[in-house]
Amino acid sequence: MKVVKFGGSSLASGPAVANALKIITSDPERQIVVTSAPGKRHAGDIKVTDLLIRYANQIIGGENASATVEEIFQRYVEIGHYFGVEEGNISHLRDILLSLPNGNYPNNEYLMAAFKAHGECLNAQLIAIILNEQGVKARFVDPKAAGLTVTGSPNNASIAPESYQALENFEYEPDEKLIFPGFYGYTLAGHIATFSRGGSDITGAILARGFHADLYENFTDVDAIFSANPAVVDHPLPIQTMTYREMRELSYAGFSVFHDEALIPAIQGQIPINVKNTQHPEKRGTMIVPEKHFKPEHIMTGIASSKHFAALYLHKYLINKEVGFTLRILNILSKYGLSYEHMPTGIDDLTIIFDKNKLSDEIIDSVCDDIQTEINPDHLEWINDYAIIMIVGEGMKNHIGVMRDIATPVAAQGISLRMVNQGSSEISIMIGTTTEDADRAVKAIYDYFFKR
Amino acid sequence: MKVVKFGGSSLASGPAVANALKIITSDPERQIVVTSAPGKRHAGDIKVTDLLIRYANQIIGGENASATVEEIFQRYVEIGHYFGVEEGNISHLRDILLSLPNGNYPNNEYLMAAFKAHGECLNAQLIAIILNEQGVKARFVDPKAAGLTVTGSPNNASIAPESYQALENFEYEPDEKLIFPGFYGYTLAGHIATFSRGGSDITGAILARGFHADLYENFTDVDAIFSANPAVVDHPLPIQTMTYREMRELSYAGFSVFHDEALIPAIQGQIPINVKNTQHPEKRGTMIVPEKHFKPEHIMTGIASSKHFAALYLHKYLINKEVGFTLRILNILSKYGLSYEHMPTGIDDLTIIFDKNKLSDEIIDSVCDDIQTEINPDHLEWINDYAIIMIVGEGMKNHIGVMRDIATPVAAQGISLRMVNQGSSEISIMIGTTTEDADRAVKAIYDYFFKR
Repeated sequence: MKVVKFGGSSLASGPAVANALKIITSDPERQIVVTSAPGKRHAGDIKVTDLLIRYANQIIGGENASATVEEIFQRYVEIGHYFGVEEGNISHLRDILLSLPNGNYPNNEYLMAAFKAHGECLNAQLIAIILNEQGVKARFVDPKAAGLTVTGSPNNASIAPESYQALENFEYEPDEKLIFPGFYGYTLAGHIATFSRGGSDITGAILARGFHADLYENFTDVDAIFSANPAVVDHPLPIQTMTYREMRELSYAGFSVFHDEALIPAIQGQIPINVKNTQHPEKRGTMIVPEKHFKPEHIMTGIASSKHFAALYLHKYLINKEVGFTLRILNILSKYGLSYEHMPTGIDDLTIIFDKNKLSDEIIDSVCDDIQTEINPDHLEWINDYAIIMIVGEGMKNHIGVMRDIATPVAAQGISLRMVNQGSSEISIMIGTTTEDADRAVKAIYDYFFKR
Repeated sequence: MKVVKFGGSSLASGPAVANALKIITSDPERQIVVTSAPGKRHAGDIKVTDLLIRYANQIIGGENASATVEEIFQRYVEIGHYFGVEEGNISHLRDILLSLPNGNYPNNEYLMAAFKAHGECLNAQLIAIILNEQGVKARFVDPKAAGLTVTGSPNNASIAPESYQALENFEYEPDEKLIFPGFYGYTLAGHIATFSRGGSDITGAILARGFHADLYENFTDVDAIFSANPAVVDHPLPIQTMTYREMRELSYAGFSVFHDEALIPAIQGQIPINVKNTQHPEKRGTMIVPEKHFKPEHIMTGIASSKHFAALYLHKYLINKEVGFTLRILNILSKYGLSYEHMPTGIDDLTIIFDKNKLSDEIIDSVCDDIQTEINPDHLEWINDYAIIMIVGEGMKNHIGVMRDIATPVAAQGISLRMVNQGSSEISIMIGTTTEDADRAVKAIYDYFFKR
């Protein structure tokens, strides 16, 4: 049995949904379907999720939202119409939308979560209707009915472990398709809470684990996961097979095809993942598999870069003789609720690398002030344009000379390395450059590994 | 004015002391002299400090120590005899030794400190006597008289800041030599406490700062500090000039010619240090100078390796999303009073590098157990034979391609890199290998930098 998940662009319009349905019905193993909300039909279009956010904000602001409701509903009407589904047969979807403001929400965050979730919810209902009209036995399953329980914050929830027990006990017929909305679950108190944005991938992985699927097929809009960003490297090789942890390391540095958090349930259930293109389901796509028995094809599987970092450099003589010194720095950071990405230490030096998205100018100033006062370093420097490049590959594990093969093309380009971090991970090397140099470094390393 | 410090081997015998005195008297600028205790006269000999430790342990154990006292005293008699000093003229040194057990010591640690300090103390007194008999105006100065106050544990004390004020007010004649014993000071309560072993270097640096010396000459038994360990690399280049922080980084990985802690007062006073050979004072030796205005001669100044490390490798999916995760690890370590050397982090990986000298098997087991229980990693591995190699040079700072020039010879030797840490320090790169590969890696890198 396979769990099949479709992304927003794969369900954005009638023709797109038709494509998806062809995929679903062409293989009886594809029994559990996870939907996203309809995405953009064309550049400049608005995703249904964004319309729902607008709707929620209008309600919170006490504004009239009827035009927004109609705009959302018409997206589903348009898709239904493509399959000959009468508007009258789906008018209850409008009623659901209209009744959303009457829900019982502990606060506006829960309201927002519930509104957003209905992009997926209505799409799943619509797809079940279409399939049934086509004579395919299909059932819409609300996460609540399946026992998909979540905890944590309403717009960034986590799966509760008891969900897996509930899913195991969920009964269904061998010939029916179950249509699950992605992206959300219910708290123990019965409120809707969503995963982080793009969270339909997570729902798919949870169902794949809960139902003990043989395969989790993740249909999206690319032929495969590529070994480098096609915007940086010309025609990068598609990755045929990679391991969970390779995916994880590449995700960290910007590979966003598959949702990072969705890896966990797949790993826990050891369910292989197949990322495929809805437009070209005949292509093999990329398999993401357990480490066990994996034989790497290349030394390097992929290279990624991410430019949203900043770093604090600190030098103080005899710093490593000061007991509890790192602890004091960590306490300063935690005082401002600040987490750091990496903290390479030298003998009397320390570099703290931050994700810029989690920073503000005031926090930077306060942290620097506190460190100046409490640590009294000889030298303190803020570096604002920090890029991290990850070179990832299971094949690097026992291969001698990888560092040379990374450093050689970078030096040939005249690029200076701000940071090298090898050895914390067995399957990756992390280097730092200026944001300006990052793309050139990626291209040079890629070419050196793959085009020599 | 110059502060001149002589190491134990430079003051081990009559001929050695004669050499030192020639150095002292040949330059009127050499006005402040710091002595060590007499060291080994030949392989298999016992240092006076070790005899004093034996003496202290005999007193603590209630044993008869008269033979030991005599053995110690005879070392000074032998030196004095070389200069024609009658035993009768230094018999008070024996009285000092004999009266040591009658001192007032808060505990046995203070007793040990006071006994050890007398190796330096008696040597300084003897040298002042010899100089005066030779017609050179010289004065023994006890650290108490100079206000050299220390704090901290009795056998690992630190200088108290008020000492510098006291030294500034200390009066002496322009034509007299002051002979200070190295290695120890007095607590505010008036008890002797020593610096860490080899601490005469520290006393010299403190005096150089306190008396605003133009130069701190450190006389030892090597012609210079070499750019690599001569036991690993054939005839390594002597380092002509290096900066304080280069010295500090090389010290960390095993360069032991100059005491690490002695750098601090020199840095604070910005006093240049000259490491020279007592046997060849005409050779220029190695200058250790402030970073300011320093122009590096080579890209790499020196390379050092140290084999007494071990590492704990830990992998857990999504570890970097667990807030306060590093804090939890640090708390486990601090529970066992354990400090770590470095902690490079990957995405879901972490390596903690320890100094093996600070570890015991029980602590390793307990720490691993606690991490297993509290962190629950997917993979935990203890790596026992970890060597760290430091490649150091102010010239590396703005030089592109250093990483390539390190990785290339290492790869050519078929040596795999366990760890690369670049970017925490501006002037060094740290790499990790097995202890078995370390020397070969050092040699390969050295040759690549200096013999191409």
